[in-house]
Amino acid sequence: MTVHMELSHDNHDVTGPVRAPLPTVRRLPAYLGLLRKYAVEGALTISSASIAAELGLEPIQVRKDLQITGLSGQPGVGFSVEALIDAIELFLGWDNATDAFIVGAGNLGSALAGYDGFALYGLNIVALFDNDPAKVGTEIHGRPVFHIDRLIDLAWRMHVHLGILAVSSTAAQQAADLMADAGLQAVWNFTPVQLKMTDGIIVEKVDLAASLAVLSNRLATAIKDKRGVHNADE
Amino acid sequence: MTVHMELSHDNHDVTGPVRAPLPTVRRLPAYLGLLRKYAVEGALTISSASIAAELGLEPIQVRKDLQITGLSGQPGVGFSVEALIDAIELFLGWDNATDAFIVGAGNLGSALAGYDGFALYGLNIVALFDNDPAKVGTEIHGRPVFHIDRLIDLAWRMHVHLGILAVSSTAAQQAADLMADAGLQAVWNFTPVQLKMTDGIIVEKVDLAASLAVLSNRLATAIKDKRGVHNADE
Repeated sequence: MTVHMELSHDNHDVTGPVRAPLPTVRRLPAYLGLLRKYAVEGALTISSASIAAELGLEPIQVRKDLQITGLSGQPGVGFSVEALIDAIELFLGWDNATDAFIVGAGNLGSALAGYDGFALYGLNIVALFDNDPAKVGTEIHGRPVFHIDRLIDLAWRMHVHLGILAVSSTAAQQAADLMADAGLQAVWNFTPVQLKMTDGIIVEKVDLAASLAVLSNRLATAIKDKRGVHNADE
Repeated sequence: MTVHMELSHDNHDVTGPVRAPLPTVRRLPAYLGLLRKYAVEGALTISSASIAAELGLEPIQVRKDLQITGLSGQPGVGFSVEALIDAIELFLGWDNATDAFIVGAGNLGSALAGYDGFALYGLNIVALFDNDPAKVGTEIHGRPVFHIDRLIDLAWRMHVHLGILAVSSTAAQQAADLMADAGLQAVWNFTPVQLKMTDGIIVEKVDLAASLAVLSNRLATAIKDKRGVHNADE
């Protein structure tokens, strides 16, 4: 129990109120992906049982999750595919594209700028920021790279609320503080640093190193076990 | 409580045994990053209290986490920085570089191939695989792109155990099955798909869409709240 609670804390260094259960919110993109596939195939309705079967979930879980959108399925018919897509997009704020800045135009920042999967999630990368003179003034995947000194000015002028933090660990807190000063309300943190932010700034962390650590440790253990078994056989 | 347990399940569609508490394993890269910084600065020892202060953790938590490496600190002195680095790298299997394939040479796969942060985590990307004739035979960030049909042959010949899955959602399960057929023992899954794998294959998921959903929903709620307050003032 303790283990799981700590894990969730690790993943979400959140400040401020949480209105919806996080696991439900985290599953919504999978529902959305499936529904979009059904819409393309011309399906008009879908049952929670079908959704459950496709995504490997329990039907009761699917019904409970989808309640959060305020939409209810009709008995014997299910949900309207289009209406459910609209309801989930509205709930996630993905009905309108959200403009975002990327802070850090290194490998990871450039990679994220070029990841066209974001468009599916209503995310529109408008610019990158860096302090490297070799990068400032260039374009990365069609997005301009500005000097980090211009972040405050441009965030206000362009009404951008979301920043993606993709700098090195050592520069992370300083860059995050600057994002707060610029009035950004949410930081998607791709660094392994546990940021200290003032209240009211939303932080969501994608910690690739932590994820890889879990995988590496389990792989190392598995390989060691196999070698052990093998040696015992010989 | 239930919420947190479900979240951890969402993040780790694991099969097989877990030996170490996941939250501890997930924190090890942060310890490692800090220790490497101290090593560069010439520090010989570090106390768990200093580590805790730097990373915003409780000292008791740090001591408990580091026990997993089998190393103990000396009272009044702390840990040897070098010894602790070695112990964590050994525990994670990051003492030797792990070769890995990337399956999917689209935007995300290319991005991951160019992310030099992986080298810090003992990960060595040796090749990419795709079925797009325009990509096969080219190089991406200096790594060759092979046709997906060659995965089984090359995995066996090159003794690669780890595959990074970066294809589209619709191609994910099929590609994962092929990775299992190729004898890969671990899949780092960057697709939003909940993979169905045979027992013994380790899967760790990085679900960017789920992470963004949490952020988007909280940002949308925050903006709505502020507008609400604002309107009430007028």
